[in-house]
Amino acid sequence: MKARKWILAKHFEGVPKDSDLELVEEELPSLKDGEVLFEAEYLSVDPYMRPYSRALSPGSVMYGEQLARVIESKNEKYALGAHYLVRAGWRDRIVIDPDTPGGALGVSSVHSAIDTGSHPASLNIGILGMPGISAYIGLIKICDPKPGETVYVNSAAGIVGSVVGQIAKIKGCKVIGSAGTDEKCKWLTTELGFDYAFNYKTRDLNEALKESAPNGVDCFFDNVGDSLSTAIIVQHMNKYGRISCCGAISQYNDTTPPTGQLLYSPFVFKELKMQGFLFPSYAKHHQAMLVDLRKWVIEGKLKYHEDVVEGFENMREAFYGMLSGKYTGKVVVKATQATKLPAAL
Amino acid sequence: MKARKWILAKHFEGVPKDSDLELVEEELPSLKDGEVLFEAEYLSVDPYMRPYSRALSPGSVMYGEQLARVIESKNEKYALGAHYLVRAGWRDRIVIDPDTPGGALGVSSVHSAIDTGSHPASLNIGILGMPGISAYIGLIKICDPKPGETVYVNSAAGIVGSVVGQIAKIKGCKVIGSAGTDEKCKWLTTELGFDYAFNYKTRDLNEALKESAPNGVDCFFDNVGDSLSTAIIVQHMNKYGRISCCGAISQYNDTTPPTGQLLYSPFVFKELKMQGFLFPSYAKHHQAMLVDLRKWVIEGKLKYHEDVVEGFENMREAFYGMLSGKYTGKVVVKATQATKLPAAL
Repeated sequence: MKARKWILAKHFEGVPKDSDLELVEEELPSLKDGEVLFEAEYLSVDPYMRPYSRALSPGSVMYGEQLARVIESKNEKYALGAHYLVRAGWRDRIVIDPDTPGGALGVSSVHSAIDTGSHPASLNIGILGMPGISAYIGLIKICDPKPGETVYVNSAAGIVGSVVGQIAKIKGCKVIGSAGTDEKCKWLTTELGFDYAFNYKTRDLNEALKESAPNGVDCFFDNVGDSLSTAIIVQHMNKYGRISCCGAISQYNDTTPPTGQLLYSPFVFKELKMQGFLFPSYAKHHQAMLVDLRKWVIEGKLKYHEDVVEGFENMREAFYGMLSGKYTGKVVVKATQATKLPAAL
Repeated sequence: MKARKWILAKHFEGVPKDSDLELVEEELPSLKDGEVLFEAEYLSVDPYMRPYSRALSPGSVMYGEQLARVIESKNEKYALGAHYLVRAGWRDRIVIDPDTPGGALGVSSVHSAIDTGSHPASLNIGILGMPGISAYIGLIKICDPKPGETVYVNSAAGIVGSVVGQIAKIKGCKVIGSAGTDEKCKWLTTELGFDYAFNYKTRDLNEALKESAPNGVDCFFDNVGDSLSTAIIVQHMNKYGRISCCGAISQYNDTTPPTGQLLYSPFVFKELKMQGFLFPSYAKHHQAMLVDLRKWVIEGKLKYHEDVVEGFENMREAFYGMLSGKYTGKVVVKATQATKLPAAL
């Protein structure tokens, strides 16, 4: 059977170019005992893929996770048609022995998908997957916001930011978000219940925060790591403020590290805490967080929007678009090569 | 009775000038019921006085703490000759009602001095006072170093840095320090038991850390907040590294805030934690920390050096010298105006 994969032809330098990623076809081997043929249904594109790709040798398959279906199995634990989350990289089909642990990002390569009920199964790679759990970790484990506190999140209309803001509302906080278009801002306030949202491209950050957070910011969930992030830390954080560093998307395309000096004085005098985190380090909490996230989704307290890009061949376009802020909420790539299974399934 | 005080004539701009601080004489009032006349024995000069002075109105007495003696009392709780720590600012004598709580830095204005045994009473404003406790807070409460981990501290020959390094040794860590002269570095390794010390003015930081910490730094206790601090965070911290921001002495003389961008990527990908702290916020832990510090001093596990400047009139010189790195360990000003008390005492 044929399969396709996206390989990193060259390390990204600055803004990613089309020639950096290459779509390649391959012939899959026939299955040995214990092996399973997974076929992608939904594939995720996430910001972390940009910096993590630096660790790949050119010619390697891009990092990534997918919601996949078993379409052939020589392992009795994996039934035909069953759904799994597979850390298989950017591939539309793969033959692996799923019981061999490990994986490029240090988590199990294959684990069961959760039942999303009346919601799309693709939530497994979105609000009920790594991005949703990351929002939960960074907000609850690092910022630990108290009712009545003010939470600010940037890239707020992205999947992580949108979950951060909504969990903060569930926790009784005042929530401010910024995003790159007026439409996204409108979605944040009218659909997701943010108290305030502003377009960072057209509004002055200091004015927007003076207006929306006259008493300062207690928790800052940072997805961006840009000069606006610095301005918030230096000028708007309250005493004992907490800053959660989830991502630094603004710095991922830099070819040289930003120069300049950390601005230590506010850390000392306001006793700020800034802490980064990565999803795998909180593995023992993932299941409990997922229970909460699923409950909130079912109760309608946690809303989501998915932008669906059709076709495995469009992963590169989806990835580059996501990095440039093209989408609202979670962007997923829907693989359209679906193999028909016997009717009995 | 006459008294002297140092007032902030003008806010410091850039490097402090002699004309910024002015020595003034005043006549003390006679004591009312409940009041006590304290006379300074040892006065502290500390880096925090530089940035905190910004909150003073010109003409105000400089912030500060002193070890003082009761030389006249209309309050039966305060016996003639007894020693107290008094947050009286830069004054050689003061009349106050010590039972009125409050104080410029949010801690009690007057509290009992501890018995330093065969050690100088001035330790009350040094290793057994705010600086020693600050070292303890930042290292233990923020960095929480584990045996075998590598701890790096800058301004290591200052009172805070020298205590940080020695506590880290007590906790079983490998300890690296930097200081501004070869003599200070020698003191750190030969007297205080640091594993490695280097002169940051003559050695390349990256080379020195590659040599001394080839496996990276787990805990960084930062007193300085300069470009070298940034280099350590960006290049030398290990995964899950902790950075304690105790001070930013390098930025205290800046007339404009440093520009540039926080370097977020290492925070995300190494899951670093950076946290500032101030002494008063840990008030409920001070006593327990003091018990440990005192025990270690008595056992000889915690060594100290005091540079003593004689004469209240030389406080400005001591302060400016301390800010420029002139002293080793703790600098204290010894007031030399000692009033004779009746022989019976």
